[in-house]
Amino acid sequence: MLDSAFDPRRLESYLCGRWVSGEGDQAIAHAATGDTVARVGGQGLDIEAALDWGRDVGGAALRKMTIHERALLLKEIGLRLMEMKEDFYTENFWTGATRKDGWVDIDGGIGTLLTFASKARRELPNARVLTEGDVEPLSKDNSFSAQHILTPLQGVAIHINAFNFPVWGLLEKIAPTLIAGMPTLVKPATQTAYLTELVVRRILDMGLLPDGALQLVCGRPDGLLDHVTGQDVVTFTGSADTGAKLRTHPAIIANSTRFTMEADSLNAAILGTDAGPDTPEFDLFVKEVAREMTAKAGQKCTAIRRVIVPKAYEDAVIEALSKRLSSVPVGLPDDDASRMGALVSLSDRDGVRDKIAALQAEAEIVFGDPDDVRTVSGDAAKGAFLSPVLLRAHDPLKADAPHSVEAFGPVATVMGYDGAAEAVRLARKGKGSLVSSLFTNDPAVAAEVVTGVAPFHGRVLIGSRASAKSSTGHGSPLAPLVHGGPGRAGGGEEMGGMRGVKHFMQRTAVQGAPALLSAVTGQWTEGAPTRADKHPFSKSLADLRLGDQVVTQSRQITLEDVEHFAHFTGDTFYAHMDSDAAKANPFFEDRVAHGYLILSLAAGLFVMPDPGPVLANYGVDNVRFMTPVYFGDTLQVRLTCKHINPRENAEHGEVRWDCQVTNQEGQVVAQYDVLTMVAKVWPSA
Amino acid sequence: MLDSAFDPRRLESYLCGRWVSGEGDQAIAHAATGDTVARVGGQGLDIEAALDWGRDVGGAALRKMTIHERALLLKEIGLRLMEMKEDFYTENFWTGATRKDGWVDIDGGIGTLLTFASKARRELPNARVLTEGDVEPLSKDNSFSAQHILTPLQGVAIHINAFNFPVWGLLEKIAPTLIAGMPTLVKPATQTAYLTELVVRRILDMGLLPDGALQLVCGRPDGLLDHVTGQDVVTFTGSADTGAKLRTHPAIIANSTRFTMEADSLNAAILGTDAGPDTPEFDLFVKEVAREMTAKAGQKCTAIRRVIVPKAYEDAVIEALSKRLSSVPVGLPDDDASRMGALVSLSDRDGVRDKIAALQAEAEIVFGDPDDVRTVSGDAAKGAFLSPVLLRAHDPLKADAPHSVEAFGPVATVMGYDGAAEAVRLARKGKGSLVSSLFTNDPAVAAEVVTGVAPFHGRVLIGSRASAKSSTGHGSPLAPLVHGGPGRAGGGEEMGGMRGVKHFMQRTAVQGAPALLSAVTGQWTEGAPTRADKHPFSKSLADLRLGDQVVTQSRQITLEDVEHFAHFTGDTFYAHMDSDAAKANPFFEDRVAHGYLILSLAAGLFVMPDPGPVLANYGVDNVRFMTPVYFGDTLQVRLTCKHINPRENAEHGEVRWDCQVTNQEGQVVAQYDVLTMVAKVWPSA
Repeated sequence: MLDSAFDPRRLESYLCGRWVSGEGDQAIAHAATGDTVARVGGQGLDIEAALDWGRDVGGAALRKMTIHERALLLKEIGLRLMEMKEDFYTENFWTGATRKDGWVDIDGGIGTLLTFASKARRELPNARVLTEGDVEPLSKDNSFSAQHILTPLQGVAIHINAFNFPVWGLLEKIAPTLIAGMPTLVKPATQTAYLTELVVRRILDMGLLPDGALQLVCGRPDGLLDHVTGQDVVTFTGSADTGAKLRTHPAIIANSTRFTMEADSLNAAILGTDAGPDTPEFDLFVKEVAREMTAKAGQKCTAIRRVIVPKAYEDAVIEALSKRLSSVPVGLPDDDASRMGALVSLSDRDGVRDKIAALQAEAEIVFGDPDDVRTVSGDAAKGAFLSPVLLRAHDPLKADAPHSVEAFGPVATVMGYDGAAEAVRLARKGKGSLVSSLFTNDPAVAAEVVTGVAPFHGRVLIGSRASAKSSTGHGSPLAPLVHGGPGRAGGGEEMGGMRGVKHFMQRTAVQGAPALLSAVTGQWTEGAPTRADKHPFSKSLADLRLGDQVVTQSRQITLEDVEHFAHFTGDTFYAHMDSDAAKANPFFEDRVAHGYLILSLAAGLFVMPDPGPVLANYGVDNVRFMTPVYFGDTLQVRLTCKHINPRENAEHGEVRWDCQVTNQEGQVVAQYDVLTMVAKVWPSA
Repeated sequence: MLDSAFDPRRLESYLCGRWVSGEGDQAIAHAATGDTVARVGGQGLDIEAALDWGRDVGGAALRKMTIHERALLLKEIGLRLMEMKEDFYTENFWTGATRKDGWVDIDGGIGTLLTFASKARRELPNARVLTEGDVEPLSKDNSFSAQHILTPLQGVAIHINAFNFPVWGLLEKIAPTLIAGMPTLVKPATQTAYLTELVVRRILDMGLLPDGALQLVCGRPDGLLDHVTGQDVVTFTGSADTGAKLRTHPAIIANSTRFTMEADSLNAAILGTDAGPDTPEFDLFVKEVAREMTAKAGQKCTAIRRVIVPKAYEDAVIEALSKRLSSVPVGLPDDDASRMGALVSLSDRDGVRDKIAALQAEAEIVFGDPDDVRTVSGDAAKGAFLSPVLLRAHDPLKADAPHSVEAFGPVATVMGYDGAAEAVRLARKGKGSLVSSLFTNDPAVAAEVVTGVAPFHGRVLIGSRASAKSSTGHGSPLAPLVHGGPGRAGGGEEMGGMRGVKHFMQRTAVQGAPALLSAVTGQWTEGAPTRADKHPFSKSLADLRLGDQVVTQSRQITLEDVEHFAHFTGDTFYAHMDSDAAKANPFFEDRVAHGYLILSLAAGLFVMPDPGPVLANYGVDNVRFMTPVYFGDTLQVRLTCKHINPRENAEHGEVRWDCQVTNQEGQVVAQYDVLTMVAKVWPSA
């Protein structure tokens, strides 16, 4: 409860480097009490200038930094936000959300930011330009090759967010954007904009982000999208109707502006044919459906709306679900006795009631009354409280409403099916969803249903006894996994680990002579110049350059070497030991040397024994044995510095070496990358 | 020339399994003579039924096949098309294109199909479901993990093509679509639909493709997009105006249908500051610009429209270009004396003349006359002949038309710049292009200009003396490289190797207990069940199953082993040999065993020496040495069958083994994938 001295603050926007207040005055109500918690007006703001400022100032500053520098900045921001999270929980209650609901938004949002910060440093190089995929040789003589690069788009990413996740929605979108090197402008939904504004204010107060990297617009600005270009990105989370309007905005169409949408989604939970009432999966299913219906009072784009169960278990499911739902106390979000809070506003509650009425044309209510809710605290006339409502579809295969009407509240419809193929048909009738879940312990059921529904989904969760304790749940998008779905769900894709970063970069195929291509990609490419002034293992990162190379002495491999290696290691595989068996093999003409012997001898040829800046060989990538090595063959190694990745906060970095082993006829016997740690400086170098 | 007996055929559409003729009657004229070469009408066709048929019949049949089966089918189709290509060249002349122009369309198109067929078998598994990226462990105890899968979208891909590449446009789009497992419906531009119709007819006559996999609609059908769903894909190549209309079609917006567009593009060629008139790059630049202006009479979406040159060389460029352009004979496309044919139609020529007039507001013509062309053959009153026209922009930085008006013919504008940064600014003023090229021999110029223009481009080509002979040229999209550009270019992305296949699949994150996840992905995952009935190396593909495992005996590594291995291989790296030096290293507490020794001993532990179905160890992937191995440590190996990839047309397949080496404390010392070839059957198994 707000105390009597509470004075609703006027929300501001942060544009062009200062906090400003737009024209207009709209009161924002506490979801559960109706009290005014904030005021806002967003008209008359100069969005065009803000976009220019973001592109020119924010974008330029971000692009000067490397991926790791940006990620470290976000890490620091995330750690500091975590320390001040109690302030966010206070305002979280205003949204109608309980503390547990808030955990997904606040801890979940900060956690997502931190995950992106950490994955970026682990999975991406410490660079400004990313490469993607292998070098494509386009000529036989290695005089012309290509590689795809990714560079940050030079516009602003405008993130238009939904009311239900004012913190997570902010952070899950700005994290990959900023790591990509692109500035952001965030427009939160007005109903809960105060909480987004608070977090943005705290982030900006840290003084860590470069000017222009993060802007905020609260309220309803005029012409938010009027000035977007082909370098900007617009993401939208909200209703399909609003999404359709934004997506067809003349500036977006004229400029082919990237537009990502997460909209309506009739997510399903499917109970497997094997998961009868006596199985752990049945209980897990009931628990998950009830949890998804009531968490955030069902106001989650990932919430379960369709409960698809074998006809034989339909009654049992309804009984168990009703029992569980009846034990969920509804009340004030900051009341410890409540397990479900309020919808975000009275008008949203009206909307949900209308949708329930629409559903009733093809389904009957089997639990709850949309017009009557018993609360443990709070006043249902002032706060947007609503009872959970469970329906049962009359004829699920023919019905339309249960597959298309999204009641954005604690509402779901049970539908019975006969056989796994029918369950798949029902799930697909949602015409594209963010997520569905399947509860089964049968691998065959999992394979049939999951691959059947996958083309219609961005995420599918399998629930079973084995993951009962560790499952992150149907409703939780995770930073490493894609979030978004085809069709009705909007056709968007967010997060998905480093995929999410690439959404804010342009992929460009670059073709050219290797020397010039390497200058662009920062990666030595076959055919690019090499330098052999001294052994490259004697060079620290301060001296080492792409193309530094050693071509070794050669060494003959003898029968004795192979016999010796076989008996020493125990690797007496027939192709090395038995001439007849080797000849019977389709790949060999006679006994061959071990691949591991080739790798070992190659290292013997290329290493420099003296202490030096090369600290360790921490791995080997993409080893391919390309030509068999027979006794008497002579091997030689060419080792070339291919990629240098200095760590941002360590005294060393990763160096990737192209290693090519050839035989006396110049045929490539083995090709691979050697991965080493190399010191940034070395006294004797 | 058409002989007097020539009877223009009426083009048909192939829908729902039969050739049908739509209502209406439109004559299609020979580009260079004006003679009617075909007639067409596309009204009254039942597109809705065709889409249903494609989804239900074609999609179902394609999804039953594996990726390799589909790719082999395309290979066969490509080889047969190549045999009958002379028939296509005959009709190619009707489009106004010379034989050389036709090479890009016909040989280039078939080559693209064959490249996709070959890359798919090399780079993708022989499976129905693809996995993407690593398994994401979501729990510490490996009871809950995730992986992304890709499954074919269950709709139809509607490919709406431009007139300029009736063969390539068809094949470059259907190849990745069909490999993905998605049926297609192709709508060629009417002006050159006869050639697309001929190729489709030949493909269908082969009887190789399953029913419904390839449909064709000629002419202007009613409501082509009225019935698209969220599972369909629409690609469009053509003008931005038409694209904007299609992209905002109510059905596309309502269903978030994937829409890919390649539209207008003011592609630039940039002469580097280092590339003065006395350099090979200058000559290459002039040659490339002239070629791109005149090939296909400049009717290529990738053609060079903006010629960006250092001011100091502007006059020299204009002089050299004019000289070169004046030596290009214009005439009938099938006349050996012609080096440039006709535009596709008289009305297109009128359109180009209008655009030249628009350009003249901000540029002057320095070569050619849009209203006067001298031809070596053909009648400029009947055929759409046009002289190449070169303009020079008055003030390139301030000008708008040269950066925004695409005259789709043999037209380009020269613009001078001062300094590399200005060249980048000029290129960006195109607001997004398919491709630009830079001619330089200076790596620093390449790095600055290419990374500067990259965010605005799908492809950038660097021309230089080193790749003079091997370069595939500014104007050629290649199957392994992305084709498409941001902003004005439409924001689309096609091809790009296997990326192009994924455009027709849905990416889905699947989460669950490893046993269930593995059943979906077809890949053994840490935590999934294992079977240790007999050594898995004794099993052929007929018997081998995911999770088949051997846990080996253990072996202690001694000081003697390391000394012995070091002297045998020559790998006397200090960390293995010198206790003090090893201790000074930030990663080690004392002398450590060689990584290659660990790999070698691991193989000694896991191999089965007797002849058997495992034919070869052809590679090793992702080796990471995770814990140092000190003398006295004891190693044990766990080898688990992770992925089985039977080859479609061989007696063996690839098997990927998860190999984990642990020490006496259970710490993972090394983790990697062992790659083997295994026989499909083995007598003694």
